[in-house]
Amino acid sequence: MYSSKYLELLIEELEKLPTIGAKSAQRLALHLLRAPREDALRLAEAIRALRERVGFCRVCGNFTEQDPCRLCSDPARESGVLCVVEQPGDVIALERTGSFKGRYHVLGGALSPLDGTTPEKLRIRELLERIRAGAEPGAAEVREVILATNPNVAGEATALYVHRLLTPLGIKVTRIARGVPMGSDLEYSDQVTLARALEGRREVE
Amino acid sequence: MYSSKYLELLIEELEKLPTIGAKSAQRLALHLLRAPREDALRLAEAIRALRERVGFCRVCGNFTEQDPCRLCSDPARESGVLCVVEQPGDVIALERTGSFKGRYHVLGGALSPLDGTTPEKLRIRELLERIRAGAEPGAAEVREVILATNPNVAGEATALYVHRLLTPLGIKVTRIARGVPMGSDLEYSDQVTLARALEGRREVE
Repeated sequence: MYSSKYLELLIEELEKLPTIGAKSAQRLALHLLRAPREDALRLAEAIRALRERVGFCRVCGNFTEQDPCRLCSDPARESGVLCVVEQPGDVIALERTGSFKGRYHVLGGALSPLDGTTPEKLRIRELLERIRAGAEPGAAEVREVILATNPNVAGEATALYVHRLLTPLGIKVTRIARGVPMGSDLEYSDQVTLARALEGRREVE
Repeated sequence: MYSSKYLELLIEELEKLPTIGAKSAQRLALHLLRAPREDALRLAEAIRALRERVGFCRVCGNFTEQDPCRLCSDPARESGVLCVVEQPGDVIALERTGSFKGRYHVLGGALSPLDGTTPEKLRIRELLERIRAGAEPGAAEVREVILATNPNVAGEATALYVHRLLTPLGIKVTRIARGVPMGSDLEYSDQVTLARALEGRREVE
């Protein structure tokens, strides 16, 4: 079907990516053939560098090539507030808001016994150690832990589990608000979300 | 925003690709971080190999790493029928049908004086030379040229132009049928397409 074996090989590799179907893979491969040579090689090099240089931050568990990572070593960020998330992508989403200036802790997933994700497989022990280390004299104390796991069964279970572990440590533990998303329509909101929105209502200031 | 500079760089490169927006670029980059290392490196290598190995076939003008290309050097394909297309992607689309067993000729575009695409910028001279070479004694003669340029203004103009050049050579020149696409709805077909479908009607066999 293809005049070039290398074109065929690249299309095969691109098709393995999520959300890239057969037609998109072909379009992307032909684009990479027509685009300036340096652009295509820069993409290849970016993928290679990513996998050869990037590892995990030993503090927060996020992806990084410098350990501790950019966010953990930024002196402008507040060490007293720790935002617990499931995945590195969640950190990017939160950073995009520009509303959070504390530190992160990436669990690496959410509790899901059916999938075999038990507490030991998440970075929960590291979270407790991090909080305990902050309580040492002279260290930066963690005053608040924000549980920003996903608002679904696994994320809620994880938030509950972490909350119970943190209670004895006497730290303020908060959970991000769950309610109707901005720009949405009450009429089409599902009942669980709407019930949460009512439950979480706040006095108008 | 990103904990890793390399992650940020890859997202930037992915965003430059057609149909890949900011969110898709992020999703793909995070996938490439989580996927098995060999899979990511195989993709990088496929892109690099594509740009370092693939050139153009001197016979048909298609992308290839062996010259003449796979399709031009396949003895099972009929040399007497030449299908003229605008781009390498058109060859892939035609090959997918499994309905054509002749040879191809890639023009590299369509006539569009406003965009500066004049006949000299297309592989029209090469097409004429190819047909003339086939007319030599002992060579494989071209009996039919199928004009499979796109059914739009530039493609129609190109087909007309090539047709006029080929007429003096006394070769059968055909144009692919333009009509209502299979699976479509007459009610929603545009008038130009429908007019073409009427004009191109054939007796029921």
